[in-house]
Amino acid sequence: MSERYDAARLKRFAADLLRKAGMPADRAGVVAEMLVDADLMGHDTHGLNLAPQYLEALASREMPRTGEPKVLSDTGPAVLWDGNYLSGVWLVRHAMDTAMARAREYGLCALSIRRSGHIACLASFLPVATARGFMMLLFSSDPANRGVAPHGATEPVYTPNPIGVGIPTPGDPVLIDISASITTMGLTGRAGADGERLAGKWLVDADGQASDDPAVFGDGGALLPLGGLDSGHKGFGLGLMVEAMTSGLAGFGRREKPGQHGASVMVMLIDPEASGGLESFAAETGFLADACRAARRPKGAPAVRLPGERALKLKREQEKRGVELYPDIMPRLAEWAERLRVPAPNPIRGKGSET
Amino acid sequence: MSERYDAARLKRFAADLLRKAGMPADRAGVVAEMLVDADLMGHDTHGLNLAPQYLEALASREMPRTGEPKVLSDTGPAVLWDGNYLSGVWLVRHAMDTAMARAREYGLCALSIRRSGHIACLASFLPVATARGFMMLLFSSDPANRGVAPHGATEPVYTPNPIGVGIPTPGDPVLIDISASITTMGLTGRAGADGERLAGKWLVDADGQASDDPAVFGDGGALLPLGGLDSGHKGFGLGLMVEAMTSGLAGFGRREKPGQHGASVMVMLIDPEASGGLESFAAETGFLADACRAARRPKGAPAVRLPGERALKLKREQEKRGVELYPDIMPRLAEWAERLRVPAPNPIRGKGSET
Repeated sequence: MSERYDAARLKRFAADLLRKAGMPADRAGVVAEMLVDADLMGHDTHGLNLAPQYLEALASREMPRTGEPKVLSDTGPAVLWDGNYLSGVWLVRHAMDTAMARAREYGLCALSIRRSGHIACLASFLPVATARGFMMLLFSSDPANRGVAPHGATEPVYTPNPIGVGIPTPGDPVLIDISASITTMGLTGRAGADGERLAGKWLVDADGQASDDPAVFGDGGALLPLGGLDSGHKGFGLGLMVEAMTSGLAGFGRREKPGQHGASVMVMLIDPEASGGLESFAAETGFLADACRAARRPKGAPAVRLPGERALKLKREQEKRGVELYPDIMPRLAEWAERLRVPAPNPIRGKGSET
Repeated sequence: MSERYDAARLKRFAADLLRKAGMPADRAGVVAEMLVDADLMGHDTHGLNLAPQYLEALASREMPRTGEPKVLSDTGPAVLWDGNYLSGVWLVRHAMDTAMARAREYGLCALSIRRSGHIACLASFLPVATARGFMMLLFSSDPANRGVAPHGATEPVYTPNPIGVGIPTPGDPVLIDISASITTMGLTGRAGADGERLAGKWLVDADGQASDDPAVFGDGGALLPLGGLDSGHKGFGLGLMVEAMTSGLAGFGRREKPGQHGASVMVMLIDPEASGGLESFAAETGFLADACRAARRPKGAPAVRLPGERALKLKREQEKRGVELYPDIMPRLAEWAERLRVPAPNPIRGKGSET
């Protein structure tokens, strides 16, 4: 079992690394918080696992260290920014502040970002909005990358295209963070590196057969859209919806053949107060959540879990007991700690050794 | 093979029936057009198949014949109507006119409708918006009905919750009309009535096993969320998203235990001119559509089809050759034709008999 680290200490550590790599302190703090929150919630491919590549991008200046997004258009409730490949995690959090203020004024706001940096874990952002009483939708695609085949094809054309949805209820929010493909490139790559099969036939091979072998990705195969060979036209539709909501409305995407990885993003905030009221909204979503939990299930089957329920439970546990990082993460960060002369944290329990 | 009917003649026929049943002529024309368009596109459970139940609802006054939706709130880009169970097909088309005008002004508009009547085929509405250069999203749920089990459960809690998305491109629009479940109640009911199995294991039985037997629905089973037993947490998430976007924002839903079938609806119109411009938008979506069509596929496999491609091709064919109706539709309409003294159309080719 891997070692555990204090969450607050990890956030300071990650913020220090990003700051030493050139990012302004306030932005470094935001990015560190969102990344460690992803680890706290168990989304461990999209937390500190990404820090080394962000540090690398800051070092190479592929990710500019400073600068502001450029406002390309602004009607009030519809805004378009050029992100100039600044940190996508910071850009999204920054966009949320604008969009929440606009949603309070107009009832909703859709803020599109072209040429954003990578935005990491969608689920990290959602509780920031739901805690303030907003419903949030977040869409992202990377026009410089491709991993998913259109339904009926075997060649990757577009990215997994995640959809994040935060829904306030009277209790914990519902936090949806799903891709329009069955699995992601991150999980496929990790299974491949670990010499393991995927837990299901979530890829398509060059002959059009479903496969659980990570090696078919990159060897004429691709990720399958949600729904698989059977109902993949639906996942394909969702993938195209996300492409239109992101690169389409941002007016910048695959057609421009971007020379670097990044993201086209849409941040949509909706204020239920402007329509039926937050109280009615939460009464409906809470009623439905209770009905889902109470639904009959097969004898011996585990309780129905709402999206985000396990993640929030894990977050609370790990905030107390420390964060369990995927084993290869701290060794990779330790190299950066040495390079940037930032002290690396000790595990909470373990051999007491500085990594 | 069933008989074919002239599309324009069918629209006049359906409009006459609705008008004679008490609906104002302009509304009857809109509803007839949207229903026959569904049949033209091959969505034959959601076209004229629904006309008898609409006529019945008009006769019983469960669907009011006249009256306007009530505006409950209006910020400009965010609007909430109480639909008073008026024809949902007319309400959506009417809401689109408001929302398109608002989207021109604000860049986007989200119009929610509580207590709408049934809205029929989502795909019928989308080309009306895309032809005017808008991206459209349409969400619907019926808070008085349930068919889909939460992931991990076997009891139906919510409806299939369709998502409609219309995306302009330089050529034909992309028209997405998918439910958050693998199949729908309409198709399951039809297979059951015809004594057939479903084409896949799209239901869950009372023991939690996937099944293609329509009889398990209504016998302790339910429709599976998109993704099935393997990845149904994603379809479950989409279903909850639609519930929040519809009944949540409308402030009226399952909690109120509505006494009659109907719909909670969100109509969202987005004007790409307000952000990156329609030309850039369509350049991106067209580029992606071309890339999808050109994607490598297994030897001998059919060409990749974009969502809506087959429907639009079928529509063009049937506009020329006549509409092929599902066999039980015209006999059911003939009863209403006699009752309301409206002459029923003759098939284009056939035995020349008045049904």
